[in-house]
Amino acid sequence: MFETAELGRKVGKSTYKSQIPALRQRLVGAQQRLRRLERPVILVFGGVDGAGKTDTVSRLYEWMDPRWILTHAYEAPLQHEAERPRMWRYWRDLPPRGQIGVFLSAWYHRPLVARALEGHDPSSNDDLDEIVAFERMLDADGAIIVKIWLHLGREQQRERFDELRADPLQAWRVSERDLANLERYDAFVDAAEELLGRTSTAQAPWHIVEGADARYRELEVARIFLDAVEANTGRPDEPDPAQPAGSPSNGTGDTSPLRDLIAGQPTILSHIEMPERLPGKEYRQQLAQLQSRISLLQRRAFEQHVPMTLVFEGPDAAGKGGVIRRLTGPLDPRNYKVIPIAGPTDEERAHQYLWRFWRHLPRSGRLAIFDRSWYGRVLVERVEEFATEDEWRRAYAEINLFERQLVDSEYVLLKFWMHVTEDEQLRRFEERKATPHKRWKLTDEDWRNREKWDDYARAAHDMIERTSTRRSPWVIVPANDKPSARIAVLARVCEALEARVAE
Amino acid sequence: MFETAELGRKVGKSTYKSQIPALRQRLVGAQQRLRRLERPVILVFGGVDGAGKTDTVSRLYEWMDPRWILTHAYEAPLQHEAERPRMWRYWRDLPPRGQIGVFLSAWYHRPLVARALEGHDPSSNDDLDEIVAFERMLDADGAIIVKIWLHLGREQQRERFDELRADPLQAWRVSERDLANLERYDAFVDAAEELLGRTSTAQAPWHIVEGADARYRELEVARIFLDAVEANTGRPDEPDPAQPAGSPSNGTGDTSPLRDLIAGQPTILSHIEMPERLPGKEYRQQLAQLQSRISLLQRRAFEQHVPMTLVFEGPDAAGKGGVIRRLTGPLDPRNYKVIPIAGPTDEERAHQYLWRFWRHLPRSGRLAIFDRSWYGRVLVERVEEFATEDEWRRAYAEINLFERQLVDSEYVLLKFWMHVTEDEQLRRFEERKATPHKRWKLTDEDWRNREKWDDYARAAHDMIERTSTRRSPWVIVPANDKPSARIAVLARVCEALEARVAE
Repeated sequence: MFETAELGRKVGKSTYKSQIPALRQRLVGAQQRLRRLERPVILVFGGVDGAGKTDTVSRLYEWMDPRWILTHAYEAPLQHEAERPRMWRYWRDLPPRGQIGVFLSAWYHRPLVARALEGHDPSSNDDLDEIVAFERMLDADGAIIVKIWLHLGREQQRERFDELRADPLQAWRVSERDLANLERYDAFVDAAEELLGRTSTAQAPWHIVEGADARYRELEVARIFLDAVEANTGRPDEPDPAQPAGSPSNGTGDTSPLRDLIAGQPTILSHIEMPERLPGKEYRQQLAQLQSRISLLQRRAFEQHVPMTLVFEGPDAAGKGGVIRRLTGPLDPRNYKVIPIAGPTDEERAHQYLWRFWRHLPRSGRLAIFDRSWYGRVLVERVEEFATEDEWRRAYAEINLFERQLVDSEYVLLKFWMHVTEDEQLRRFEERKATPHKRWKLTDEDWRNREKWDDYARAAHDMIERTSTRRSPWVIVPANDKPSARIAVLARVCEALEARVAE
Repeated sequence: MFETAELGRKVGKSTYKSQIPALRQRLVGAQQRLRRLERPVILVFGGVDGAGKTDTVSRLYEWMDPRWILTHAYEAPLQHEAERPRMWRYWRDLPPRGQIGVFLSAWYHRPLVARALEGHDPSSNDDLDEIVAFERMLDADGAIIVKIWLHLGREQQRERFDELRADPLQAWRVSERDLANLERYDAFVDAAEELLGRTSTAQAPWHIVEGADARYRELEVARIFLDAVEANTGRPDEPDPAQPAGSPSNGTGDTSPLRDLIAGQPTILSHIEMPERLPGKEYRQQLAQLQSRISLLQRRAFEQHVPMTLVFEGPDAAGKGGVIRRLTGPLDPRNYKVIPIAGPTDEERAHQYLWRFWRHLPRSGRLAIFDRSWYGRVLVERVEEFATEDEWRRAYAEINLFERQLVDSEYVLLKFWMHVTEDEQLRRFEERKATPHKRWKLTDEDWRNREKWDDYARAAHDMIERTSTRRSPWVIVPANDKPSARIAVLARVCEALEARVAE
């Protein structure tokens, strides 16, 4: 979930400065519309210590009209707070309509600490249910809820603490507890994953922001805030009717530079290192070994009633079909099925979109391989606008629930993103065109999809951010070299089976 | 929660028969609109064994076009079902758009049995969360979800079993397990209360229907079904444009008789037995005793940090103020506050409606008495249309959550419905008019409210059905005789405190 926020996203000083004037105008304009429409905003900041929560809030005060912002930070409950239900102090601090309430950690603090440090019973999530119901109630009442999780990688956090401690004016900000918690980094990140996964709803989704670079962080937080507020109160991008058409923009009108700036940032897919080409001989040796291991492991899984579901996604011509054939080659055909996903049938269209995937779930001991999958909802259906924004945004939580049900039922679940670069895809397309027996694989649609490469990359990035969890992770497979990609997938499948079946 | 479904509601044979032709036309019309608009219906039946689930479904088949209904009943999972996630078999059976899927118990069966018979850990409600998320997903996808809980009182259930067993053709329907479960009636009802409370959402509320009288049950189920479907697909009450104005109704046009018939049924308030007048001397004796007990108990509650919240609702002139004065008379004024609820202030109006109640929650050891309360949302705001239907329907779940948070935080919470009959209220109004020092208490609004007596009674009935739980029950106080009402309230408060404070 957090791998998408350790990419080293950065914004240069001059770019940053050039954004500020228009940004401030948009922010102040948004505040005015909020007041006029009497919509309150609940802006929650959570995240890793040292990721810049306080600094970011200070910047928002600088950029906006501070009269209509109220910030709330919480220590351990005081006597009179401890005597009331735990949500009491947050209720008291809710902003009135038209204003912005900024909440630092707030109702997310206790559940996080309980899970990270106190061995919270994982089957009891009443505290998170309470939060979901609370936010749903506020949303139904007209509040705009924006939740931002500022993330730092473990090393980034350590560097940040060192930096602060080296500065006499800042050293006090790093407490002994912060340093002790750094040692428990993994526990915090696991707990955060659980927390964010269970409390990301369509009305109140979490946005994960990379915290390391202050300028990137501030602009990205402002963008998320503006997107949420403007979606609810209108965007200032209609030309001002008082100005003649064609006259220069008044600065608030043009909302694209900030969005373009963020869109131009690296995605998780821009960071994939392509390994060296695997020589043919080594490939064949390794493949033979892995295939016999898989054959054995799948027989054991069958005997021990362990079901497995594999998902393959990735750009056209990334080699999904090839790897699936290598995987199933050694298996008993009675024990697996490959489910290719194209457009839904009439019957499937007459049901909720997950219905067609539920029906294909394998029995215990069997393997189901989805060649494309339910993720189409947040990939092709999003990019091609087959699904409404509402539908695909809702889908992340729906998919997470679906996969949680699989994992709770002891399914082994792996999701592979087979990745090729844009250049490699082009090379493969050209090759297909030139090879008579492969030509049928290349359609006009493939060329059209290629034109939307960046949109698909962004959709894939968001998908991985929102649906990669420790229990059902996305495995990103660098696939420019087909042999090494196949070996990587087969090895990962063996590993997952070995962790679950006994000798 | 179920006290509203043990009122002996009945429909006579000729009334029943007279309803059928129009009803069938409406039902078939609704089916046609569902098909045209491609909306699926999920109709869930739960409830006490013997309350008539199967018979009711048979009747729906008789009344509707059976080609577009599919009914699903479930036994213990078969091998191939047990091998998949527990929701798998329900997903498979979901109706396609335009059709009606009838589900008997279905996904509610396991959670009920786990809670009633298997000592389910009450802090773990992941199974119910899964259900809520499942139904929310279907609702977002356009499904109309109607959930009906058929209820029988314990004695009614016993009689029903005896009746079936006496009939050679029906005796097989009562199993040994049914009879064993009858002995565990209370455990089932407690579990059902928990189940319904946690899974009644604004999109998919439970409707509790008294099951004892078949004719009433069938008409009420049809009414609930039609209300839900017509709210989503339009009502057939516009005159048929093909017919000249003023021509006789075609039978489907008039939707009111069925609704009137149900509205004319007794509510929980029509069943209140008013006790004998309590003579003055006895009253004064008992009052003095109770007041000194309360004084002592409240001191102990203070020392032992037990907070208490009392809610008083009821018709105008029911004597709320008088009973509150008797209650607070003996108390230390530092330890209680009375919060009279009238229209909200500007500041309160700028927040979610529960905000004004949260702020008044007492500290531990203190007592807060609400003279009218958050229930205004589902009483006056519903009847006077200050809240939209969406808002007040949503409020039941919101209020239940709020009160659960109080009870989880160890608050003693009691809700009193002070009830006077319509005649007694009139007598008191006349008396106030005639008594100079009481005249100020009587306003034009009181007279206006009186005209809506039946609407208020219905709202109170629904409120008690949806918000009376074992942990925060409604206490209905017959209040035609003021002295005995006061004694009843004070005694109940003492009882509740005694259960919670140590000597």
